[in-house]
Amino acid sequence: MSVVRCDQTDAWKALQAHYDASGRQFDLRAAFASDAGRFDHFAIEAPGVFADLSKNRWDASTRALLTGLAAECGLEARRDAMFAGEPINLTEGRAVLHTALRAPSNAPPVSAVTDAAIGEVHSVLDPLLAYAERVRAQAGTQFTDVLNIGIGGSDLGPQMAVIALQEFAHPQLRFHFVSNVDGHDIAPVLARLDANKTLVIVASKTFTTQETLANANVAREWFTANGGTDVATHFVGVTTNIEAAAKFGITTTFGFWDWVGGRYSLWSAIGLSIAIAIGADGFKEFLAGAHAMDEHFRTAPLARNLPVQLALIDVWYRNFHGFTSRSVAPYHQGLKRFPAYLQQLEMESNGKRVDVDGRAVPFATSPVVWGEPGTNGQHAYFQMLHQGTDVVPVEFIAVKRPAAGHDGAYADLHVKLLANCLAQSQALMQGKAPAEAAQESPPTASRTIAREVIAEHRAFPGNRPSTTLVLDALTPRTLGSLIALYEHRVFCSGALWGINSFDQWGVELGKALCNALLPRLASGATDGLDSSTAGLLTRLK
Amino acid sequence: MSVVRCDQTDAWKALQAHYDASGRQFDLRAAFASDAGRFDHFAIEAPGVFADLSKNRWDASTRALLTGLAAECGLEARRDAMFAGEPINLTEGRAVLHTALRAPSNAPPVSAVTDAAIGEVHSVLDPLLAYAERVRAQAGTQFTDVLNIGIGGSDLGPQMAVIALQEFAHPQLRFHFVSNVDGHDIAPVLARLDANKTLVIVASKTFTTQETLANANVAREWFTANGGTDVATHFVGVTTNIEAAAKFGITTTFGFWDWVGGRYSLWSAIGLSIAIAIGADGFKEFLAGAHAMDEHFRTAPLARNLPVQLALIDVWYRNFHGFTSRSVAPYHQGLKRFPAYLQQLEMESNGKRVDVDGRAVPFATSPVVWGEPGTNGQHAYFQMLHQGTDVVPVEFIAVKRPAAGHDGAYADLHVKLLANCLAQSQALMQGKAPAEAAQESPPTASRTIAREVIAEHRAFPGNRPSTTLVLDALTPRTLGSLIALYEHRVFCSGALWGINSFDQWGVELGKALCNALLPRLASGATDGLDSSTAGLLTRLK
Repeated sequence: MSVVRCDQTDAWKALQAHYDASGRQFDLRAAFASDAGRFDHFAIEAPGVFADLSKNRWDASTRALLTGLAAECGLEARRDAMFAGEPINLTEGRAVLHTALRAPSNAPPVSAVTDAAIGEVHSVLDPLLAYAERVRAQAGTQFTDVLNIGIGGSDLGPQMAVIALQEFAHPQLRFHFVSNVDGHDIAPVLARLDANKTLVIVASKTFTTQETLANANVAREWFTANGGTDVATHFVGVTTNIEAAAKFGITTTFGFWDWVGGRYSLWSAIGLSIAIAIGADGFKEFLAGAHAMDEHFRTAPLARNLPVQLALIDVWYRNFHGFTSRSVAPYHQGLKRFPAYLQQLEMESNGKRVDVDGRAVPFATSPVVWGEPGTNGQHAYFQMLHQGTDVVPVEFIAVKRPAAGHDGAYADLHVKLLANCLAQSQALMQGKAPAEAAQESPPTASRTIAREVIAEHRAFPGNRPSTTLVLDALTPRTLGSLIALYEHRVFCSGALWGINSFDQWGVELGKALCNALLPRLASGATDGLDSSTAGLLTRLK
Repeated sequence: MSVVRCDQTDAWKALQAHYDASGRQFDLRAAFASDAGRFDHFAIEAPGVFADLSKNRWDASTRALLTGLAAECGLEARRDAMFAGEPINLTEGRAVLHTALRAPSNAPPVSAVTDAAIGEVHSVLDPLLAYAERVRAQAGTQFTDVLNIGIGGSDLGPQMAVIALQEFAHPQLRFHFVSNVDGHDIAPVLARLDANKTLVIVASKTFTTQETLANANVAREWFTANGGTDVATHFVGVTTNIEAAAKFGITTTFGFWDWVGGRYSLWSAIGLSIAIAIGADGFKEFLAGAHAMDEHFRTAPLARNLPVQLALIDVWYRNFHGFTSRSVAPYHQGLKRFPAYLQQLEMESNGKRVDVDGRAVPFATSPVVWGEPGTNGQHAYFQMLHQGTDVVPVEFIAVKRPAAGHDGAYADLHVKLLANCLAQSQALMQGKAPAEAAQESPPTASRTIAREVIAEHRAFPGNRPSTTLVLDALTPRTLGSLIALYEHRVFCSGALWGINSFDQWGVELGKALCNALLPRLASGATDGLDSSTAGLLTRLK
């Protein structure tokens, strides 16, 4: 499969000319004024997720040029190669088949590799869900708490999803997630658990992850010190290293495959805590939601394909406008860990500086992705989004219906929440001219400063872009669709940039240096170290 | 007081020349190789916080030029004006005296304004601490849980500090923080509380903050619905609006002053939950730690003044190197909410685009500040920090000693944690050349790709800058120092940029538009709205 890098296309040159001619000066307010149908023209309805792309700095020409870029880069062929299980993770010679994790067992044939993968998936999924149901059947009696020990993809995905789906979780089970190799993470969690009523999930594909094994050892020590005897019942492994798990005392394990990357693994056995929380039927809904988005991505034309269009806007902003970060603002407290989840998904996938052929790319790749739930962010960093010197595109995620039972005073909260969400994207776009601000008399403004000067402080430049994604409700199915949407979007921007979104060599050096420093922290030896590392080591020893 | 903006100085021009001549190409590895004493030359010991500034892209000339910039901008005079209670929050005509909140009552005289403020502070602090002690005396009997309802500064600071100081918190009290105007925030919290054993703190200076009052109303409804009768005992207000609080049923209130900004307010009555958690003596230690940093900032020469030097590096990176964000990586799980706290502190303070005279500034101001605790970040976005196309300076925060009792298996965790912290800054700086990578045979690398190509994927550019801050332990005193360090650093960069770091007009427009949208979400009326806001409103109604 030949890879055409974005900057080697005619479309790229045309986009640069378009940016220079009109893109740079594009004004959202003028665009809305001149096109009453702009909202409809830039709306995309995908499974579970509706997207309003109209408050972005683009017009029909920009969209056509960007869509042409995707075509010229061969994005459709590369998407199809992923679904077909070709080894698109080139540096590791692996297929990338998280889509197989959510494909129904009766899915139409795709390729021999994919069909085989789907078969294997169901051979693990069925016993996994049966196990989850057995745990749920003992909830409140044998088990009151589930502790997931894992890090990175073995933590962020399950944690984010279990928090998001709290409404659907078994009411007699509490869930805990420990990841950091810092006793201050696990100690307070263990302090409130009953060893005899806790199920510990140890999630590490190789069963060698430093942080996870260190925490698992602490948990086992705590378990036996607190009267626990039956490690095999109270610990379960999500790993392919059955032997190492057995040495630890774990006899129940669920595995996965080298075509499942860590940051795409919550659909696999890594999602065990999710399956226990929401049950087998809930987990199937979660997978079905993702599969529905897969089908949209696989079949919708580029111009109506939501992951494709979001990725194209990302490229437009990153490589032409030069925006360096994107803020994600979920207006649902259940999605409070979604930005942290996206940080791994996007920055670990596309934080690369060489293309698939190993050549340094002459353009920017992954932006910084960051954010906190709205309305909290409004009372923290939104000041900078509205009046700072940099433009930061914002991604609002709104959920129409709250959880069941949120009536009475709760209904009032929900309306306020949605009004805030709408008001922020409106304010970012609309802005406020100094002349308009000068008409107002804010009670806290100094009276010794000229009214015109105060007005400059109170003015907003506006024309700040945003995307709003809308879910009708936050359910296993819609959450599945939402996550898959972001996965594919990241695939698309990575494909356009011509990088490998599926390796993570950038984490290796720190691991190697850590192993070299560990004995030095005991011995105090600093020979051969730079003076900073030596000095800090001496101070911390 | 005349304000000299950074770009109007001779030092600025000299810095630009220095950057063009050598700063742009500065290589950390060469700098360490040529100066065996580099660590010592760029170390600053401040109260409670040791800083290693040597892994930053600067040399002695850069530091001298930057320090000269601070002098030429009159930074010392402006610092003194803040401490003296001059109305440096010009647009609101207010003094900025969070330093008075932690000044001892027998502090040497500063100015009439400041001395008066210190007197007022102690007239609230003493009864506040007495109240906190009364609550603590009833811990486990009358009160088992404390629920703080506030948003922005009334939430982020207390929440961050109570989590950080868990080791010092009363063992028979649990603390909860609700901020978001989203029922999914407060509902699960209330579900696990006993109304008759809960103390609710309603923190809103004006007692009109939309989110806080909406949540307070839900809490009061829950309280009475669950058998609570004595609102006056179970609700306490942190507010200056005694009348509104009384209407709500609150008779105990603690106030603060218009010279305390929300993001600087955890030292005031807003810190009530902290005081209840760690007690009167602990809170005094917390204040004393901040005061020690105040004294350092007030008296240390610019070249040895930690907040000043950190701010100068910030300016160097933001305005000359063009770095747009800074990642904060606390290697202590207790500091997990510190990045979110800093987002408000820095981005709300310095996310401004006009100077104090209302003129648009021609340079960049607040960067994006973001991060998650190490080692979690290593398994998420550190890939991008090491191998992405953008340079993101990283701020590591290491804590030498873990909490008491962290021995045995926990000691092993702590050594691993520190080794990881050191290894990351080392890796960012050191990098790995393709030739070196080509010598290695990583087990997962594809064998069908040329070794040289794999090496390019596995190479690290290095020369990526970082700062490491070291605390000996995380205690009320050192946390106080650490927070005050950041407060003053943000003051310094804001002063150099010539902006007002103490107003937040950028939050006003969204509030006004939200109030206008609220009735429309009920009625569905979309007349006069842009088609995007109208379309979303119709969809969400």
